[in-house]
Amino acid sequence: MSQLVRVQNFMLSADGFGAGEGQSLEAPFGHAEDASVKLPADLGAWAFATAHWPGRTDGAGSLGLDDYFTRDFARNIGAEIMGRNKCGPQRGPWENLDWQGWWGDDPPFHTPVFVLTHHHRPSFTLSDTTFHFIDAKPADALRQAKEAADGKDVRIGGGVATVRQFLDADLIDTMHVAVAPIEIGQGERLWTSPDELLDRFHLESVPSASGVTHLLFWRR
Amino acid sequence: MSQLVRVQNFMLSADGFGAGEGQSLEAPFGHAEDASVKLPADLGAWAFATAHWPGRTDGAGSLGLDDYFTRDFARNIGAEIMGRNKCGPQRGPWENLDWQGWWGDDPPFHTPVFVLTHHHRPSFTLSDTTFHFIDAKPADALRQAKEAADGKDVRIGGGVATVRQFLDADLIDTMHVAVAPIEIGQGERLWTSPDELLDRFHLESVPSASGVTHLLFWRR
Repeated sequence: MSQLVRVQNFMLSADGFGAGEGQSLEAPFGHAEDASVKLPADLGAWAFATAHWPGRTDGAGSLGLDDYFTRDFARNIGAEIMGRNKCGPQRGPWENLDWQGWWGDDPPFHTPVFVLTHHHRPSFTLSDTTFHFIDAKPADALRQAKEAADGKDVRIGGGVATVRQFLDADLIDTMHVAVAPIEIGQGERLWTSPDELLDRFHLESVPSASGVTHLLFWRR
Repeated sequence: MSQLVRVQNFMLSADGFGAGEGQSLEAPFGHAEDASVKLPADLGAWAFATAHWPGRTDGAGSLGLDDYFTRDFARNIGAEIMGRNKCGPQRGPWENLDWQGWWGDDPPFHTPVFVLTHHHRPSFTLSDTTFHFIDAKPADALRQAKEAADGKDVRIGGGVATVRQFLDADLIDTMHVAVAPIEIGQGERLWTSPDELLDRFHLESVPSASGVTHLLFWRR
């Protein structure tokens, strides 16, 4: 099988939002219209409960359907491409180089990561993840990531704007979106309805006992 | 997470049979009561249609829910234990050593495989799979397989009698059974109902678009 371009475990609200408004250091996913909706807790509860959620160290967690998705996150992935807004809350030129992402000393990627940004900064490495900062169109970024992935697949890591860019450029082969039973009502919206993609993708919709619905897309 | 003992992609009929009667070289899964039911074709159709079915080389196949199961088959598996009847149609002492399993020169296991049999024969290697033949109780076989798995998980590969033995000895941690919408009516039966295991296991039942129902068990 050739190198696939995959979206994995992308978390979305029932009304199609991947993040709310006002992303900041204190609120990495911003705020929902309804203040009782907690982000990212209510978007990611299904994943945080699984045995293979990256970073889990207590040996507990569920091993049902949802865990198939968390344990598939890294399988055969050789590189990730993410938007700059996933990497950090800053906007515009980097004021300093202290910020090294949200993920601490051992980020959950374990591959090269290409961060799309108009504002250059040098690459850096944390454990076995190296972050590169590139100003590139989707097709060019993908060429670099595929080369770095050394034959393995490339994950498009988000956020919403980045996934949209790669969908619009028709560069995505498979996409897993986990739709949580919450409404965000404002912020970054991926779609009005997943049916918008049916001209190009097969779609299976798989409800999970946890309350999320896993949407699985692959090219027609 | 410690080493798990896993049953993966175990194919069963709606009435609980994993194989019919009269297993032979020509009919590895035997025959169903109703001759219009074809074994193993009707049991395994869901898996054969996926992109990651071992041995697929045409680059085609589905990438929906069913494919999560075929691509999880080998993830973090370090050894398999199988019953002698899965390895071949012969019964009793090995009349000769020509038989090397059903799987050709490149078996889909890629790990050590421990075949439970009262009839000893020397180990042999095909590509990166080595078959060992051992006369051992489940707990002893598992001890050997865990050591050979070098920290990874151990798959209990079947058939029905072997899975039952390991369930009865309470040695299985997770089990995925794919129930096909067919009836076999005779042969080797795993259970009357999956509910028999609910005292010891969580159970999620996940219907797939292909018509099978994936049953996911993990220890309470």
